[in-house]
Amino acid sequence: MDSAVVLLSGGLDSSTCLYYAKDKHETIYTVAFEYGQRHKIELMASEKISKLAGAKKHFQIPVGLDKIGGSALTDNLEVPKGGKDLDKEDFIPVTYVPARNLVFLSLAAGVAEVTQSSYLYIGANALDYSGYPDCREDFLQAFEKTVQLATKHGREGKKLVIKAPLLHKSKSEIAKLASDLNLPLEYTWSCYDPVKRGNTFFPCGECDSCLLRKRGFEEAGIKDPIWEKGFFAK
Amino acid sequence: MDSAVVLLSGGLDSSTCLYYAKDKHETIYTVAFEYGQRHKIELMASEKISKLAGAKKHFQIPVGLDKIGGSALTDNLEVPKGGKDLDKEDFIPVTYVPARNLVFLSLAAGVAEVTQSSYLYIGANALDYSGYPDCREDFLQAFEKTVQLATKHGREGKKLVIKAPLLHKSKSEIAKLASDLNLPLEYTWSCYDPVKRGNTFFPCGECDSCLLRKRGFEEAGIKDPIWEKGFFAK
Repeated sequence: MDSAVVLLSGGLDSSTCLYYAKDKHETIYTVAFEYGQRHKIELMASEKISKLAGAKKHFQIPVGLDKIGGSALTDNLEVPKGGKDLDKEDFIPVTYVPARNLVFLSLAAGVAEVTQSSYLYIGANALDYSGYPDCREDFLQAFEKTVQLATKHGREGKKLVIKAPLLHKSKSEIAKLASDLNLPLEYTWSCYDPVKRGNTFFPCGECDSCLLRKRGFEEAGIKDPIWEKGFFAK
Repeated sequence: MDSAVVLLSGGLDSSTCLYYAKDKHETIYTVAFEYGQRHKIELMASEKISKLAGAKKHFQIPVGLDKIGGSALTDNLEVPKGGKDLDKEDFIPVTYVPARNLVFLSLAAGVAEVTQSSYLYIGANALDYSGYPDCREDFLQAFEKTVQLATKHGREGKKLVIKAPLLHKSKSEIAKLASDLNLPLEYTWSCYDPVKRGNTFFPCGECDSCLLRKRGFEEAGIKDPIWEKGFFAK
């Protein structure tokens, strides 16, 4: 039995990560978090992509990161626009959520234990988010060791391998990989500040996350259908 | 500025840990988790004890461990009674919640970052729960290293020290310490299967957690008021 858990936010990176993992393992479980994010579209995207990828079960786990605060993604702070912080090195933007990947990986390790999975995938990326401490290799390695000691399975000698296949890829390489893997891009969601027209949500095109995605696809020379099609509310 | 975060479930161990920590630091923050546990009394106990200890803020963070399952504390499984598993070495009981302390410590690390705290206390105990992998010293040490790499503060060189002052104490030593620290025992809650009489909750006296607590106080020769007074619903 070979199964893997994939952290799936519904964004481009985690969805690409899922499509990368799904052909490598017999069974896939996906995990999304309801963490008080201001927009629920990513939860809808996550559920949809999980279904399209044929995951055996999609876990949607509530976790009150908004009770901790300290981030523009959960608090009522303004989301950065215009991309002026995009290329700063080692800069931690206001969209950083304290200990987020640590919390997400920990909950996913619980899912891995219950589903008896040996692999845990995360779409972390060290290039585009150089300032996020929890998107770096040394953190992921330390976490793998910690989880070995934290769980019943780990103590019994079963290893949970943390996989971060996008860690050293640029956004354009990720766009290229997503396209090669036939990821249905119109169901992935990256924008921090969506605009609704009729029943359809469109990305704002101006937040840092939109700008990164746009630039990646442009550099890869690939068309991203999200700008024309948008994302259906139901 | 010297502040500490204390994980506070409202049970005897974490409450003793809080009373131990509160005289050592200028400011104390407490954290409790609403994790789908079957009984809410421990959340009431936690809030009450936090107030009595003079904590600056009590964080109650929802986290859906019940969505992961795999434990008698969140699922509809029978809670063990009669104590037949109590002294088994390296035995993991059905009350084990997958990756629980890993998840709790991760969220508390987020609270520590936001509150700029340098210490994180956990009432983990390696003796009474020898089978719980996440109540052991090697796990706590590995976690401390991981958190250093996971957070903005850690990357800036600020250390978060994990403290587990009860790790190697027996239940009777904890009872003695609680009594020495004037912990209001009637507001701490340990029972997995409470009984309500009028407005007051009483511990069942038969679940493993009750039996451990009872034995600890008997061995220490200290009276535990919870058996007579119970715990008020409001």
